[in-house]
Amino acid sequence: MFYPEPIAKLIDSFSRLPGVGPKTAARLAFYVLRMKEEDVMNFAKALVNVKRNLLYCSVCCNITDTDPCRVCSDKQRDRSVICVVQEARDLVAMERTKEYHGMYHVLQGAISPMEGIGPDDIRVAELLRRLADDEVQELILATNPNIEGEATAMYLSRLVKPFQIKVTRIAHGLPVGGDLEYADEVTLSKALEGRRELS
Amino acid sequence: MFYPEPIAKLIDSFSRLPGVGPKTAARLAFYVLRMKEEDVMNFAKALVNVKRNLLYCSVCCNITDTDPCRVCSDKQRDRSVICVVQEARDLVAMERTKEYHGMYHVLQGAISPMEGIGPDDIRVAELLRRLADDEVQELILATNPNIEGEATAMYLSRLVKPFQIKVTRIAHGLPVGGDLEYADEVTLSKALEGRRELS
Repeated sequence: MFYPEPIAKLIDSFSRLPGVGPKTAARLAFYVLRMKEEDVMNFAKALVNVKRNLLYCSVCCNITDTDPCRVCSDKQRDRSVICVVQEARDLVAMERTKEYHGMYHVLQGAISPMEGIGPDDIRVAELLRRLADDEVQELILATNPNIEGEATAMYLSRLVKPFQIKVTRIAHGLPVGGDLEYADEVTLSKALEGRRELS
Repeated sequence: MFYPEPIAKLIDSFSRLPGVGPKTAARLAFYVLRMKEEDVMNFAKALVNVKRNLLYCSVCCNITDTDPCRVCSDKQRDRSVICVVQEARDLVAMERTKEYHGMYHVLQGAISPMEGIGPDDIRVAELLRRLADDEVQELILATNPNIEGEATAMYLSRLVKPFQIKVTRIAHGLPVGGDLEYADEVTLSKALEGRRELS
């Protein structure tokens, strides 16, 4: 390498991030060089804090800095519904809708035989424990609309049958603002299948 | 925000980087969450070190962790040629060719009236000082082939005239592996203008 060691190390660190190649890593490292010292220190601190101060909520398995997390400890929320999502980011996406006021369960992944991820590798056992204890009446399966997400939803719906809880799956269809012309066949046929009578 | 504070802060830090929007920042922050603790600590350390342990070489103005930098203190290199580049990264690009064994001068920018950057804002004075002292016989202007780079090269070539040093500019032309069909007119006319007789 022709870079001085400190910058070479930073380039190396940046290039370990997903989607960051060596050229982008160098660009970012040189950008850091010109950033305000305070901002760089905050960046470094934020990195350390994310590793040190975050844990998983003992109830819903979401990442959190308090246990139980803010959703689980919120008395205002409807404890009769649990929305099952794959990742913490999916929970945030759901929260952004401002339409859902129930509880969550973060699986931290999806079943994927291709990658060797089975039900024991994600937080299924924790979900079952909640179903046994709680006053849960509905389980909304909001895993991703892809092969792994569908497989996980299917698996969970069968697993949960004995509990006699209503199990629902979020709807497939055309995204709002989308274009029929550009929709793929599978989405379109799902949209057709899930059609609803206009009142 | 719906994210716990440590992760929100990291997302904020990532989104300050160039070309990183809020979605990418969130993706990177969650990736960090799953990285090995050691790697994250090294990342944080690298950030701090880049700010604390790097300085500008007192001779060539390149960024370095030793002063003078490795190029300037290398006795093997040809001190009769100075290659003027805009940025430290350009120096690295030149070094990668393994064809150049002279010295460098890093301007740390280019003259750009549009952005209010004049000759006093880049390391021109330091270059003139070197020309007065040293046994320099050739100055290679390797600023970028764009408006700012050309203006800077033009300015330097005039400024250096009294020193009676040979001043050269790197060639414009078609990039190797490029396609004539896709070359823009300016590049192509420069390539034509700079044509050389085959021996």
